[in-house]
Amino acid sequence: MTIKLHCFGESGNAYKAALTMTLADVEWEPVFVDFFNGASRTPEFRKLNIMGEVPVMVDGDLVISQSAVIQDYITSKTSKLGGKSADQRREVLRWMFFDNHKVSGVAGTLRFNMNYLPEAKRSKEVNDFLLMRLKSALKIMDAHLAGREWLATEELTIADIACCGYLFYTEPFGFDRKEFPNIDAWLDRIAATPGWKHPYDLMQRSLPAA
Amino acid sequence: MTIKLHCFGESGNAYKAALTMTLADVEWEPVFVDFFNGASRTPEFRKLNIMGEVPVMVDGDLVISQSAVIQDYITSKTSKLGGKSADQRREVLRWMFFDNHKVSGVAGTLRFNMNYLPEAKRSKEVNDFLLMRLKSALKIMDAHLAGREWLATEELTIADIACCGYLFYTEPFGFDRKEFPNIDAWLDRIAATPGWKHPYDLMQRSLPAA
Repeated sequence: MTIKLHCFGESGNAYKAALTMTLADVEWEPVFVDFFNGASRTPEFRKLNIMGEVPVMVDGDLVISQSAVIQDYITSKTSKLGGKSADQRREVLRWMFFDNHKVSGVAGTLRFNMNYLPEAKRSKEVNDFLLMRLKSALKIMDAHLAGREWLATEELTIADIACCGYLFYTEPFGFDRKEFPNIDAWLDRIAATPGWKHPYDLMQRSLPAA
Repeated sequence: MTIKLHCFGESGNAYKAALTMTLADVEWEPVFVDFFNGASRTPEFRKLNIMGEVPVMVDGDLVISQSAVIQDYITSKTSKLGGKSADQRREVLRWMFFDNHKVSGVAGTLRFNMNYLPEAKRSKEVNDFLLMRLKSALKIMDAHLAGREWLATEELTIADIACCGYLFYTEPFGFDRKEFPNIDAWLDRIAATPGWKHPYDLMQRSLPAA
């Protein structure tokens, strides 16, 4: 049965799930959530996910939200893209939590504020604060990637797919690849992985391209 | 061998690991990290954890950082406080990611800004923004807790221990239990669990009590 992913193109969190399924060769199809028209805040959507967020994955009777849990489920189902030992699985999980807390958790908010919030509601103080936090997390990732190809193991894992969730988008959010040379090279490695696609080539956008 | 936890009292993330070990009846002892004197930013500490954060758990040769990964390790080691099936384990993990991203990730920052940042560096705009984000996440938790005792399963799990990480602290950060009656009752249930302790009774503070 084809897995369904409730998603939209602008969501880096949805992208993590979509890219994981794509690179794991799982059959899946997107179910478009028209986020900018409020589709993730309806009572129907809250019934699917009380957290009111994409992505939500539906595999038969199984409904899972939180990108990281979907990613973890796909590695269990396919034995691909995950850690190969208890130690590796923990190291993968460690970077996924770091991502949710300090990388995507901040980048997603900042990108939303800078691109999708009405001009009148944008706050330079808030965005400067978020950018300081984001750069501090990216500096740690960049240092960790010095001399290594992937974040958690010797191979591409869902930890890499989580941490890059927002980093291929070109809408400005203060992230400049050239400031982080090891991240820059790592993003090139991810994009060179057979089957890789940009978020907008995997999922429909909720807003038209600028 | 006694597990060592690098931690300090003001860290709600360290508290999650400390409380998990305490309630799982694991023998552990704190290693004090003098955070407010820069102890988590030294090269030595970065060698232990490149992320420059507490908690860090050391169990013999095994070194783990990220509170959630430590919590997960303790459930594997003891078969306590975790999910009992694949479905339950995913539901536990789902609330732990929600916590890291939307609850503790925001509460920890806001509490730091409001209590520990020098007055001159505090920004009302930033803190108002963080409080809006925090309340939105707490509203979801409160709705989810309506008619249920625990977040993820029929029993207390590490998901509850993660989500409450910052909520027992009394330093002001805009959180008022009375605004969230289901969270209020759930915190009472957690505090009534045999063996429960407040963060400052488990770990040494890095700043003296006000």
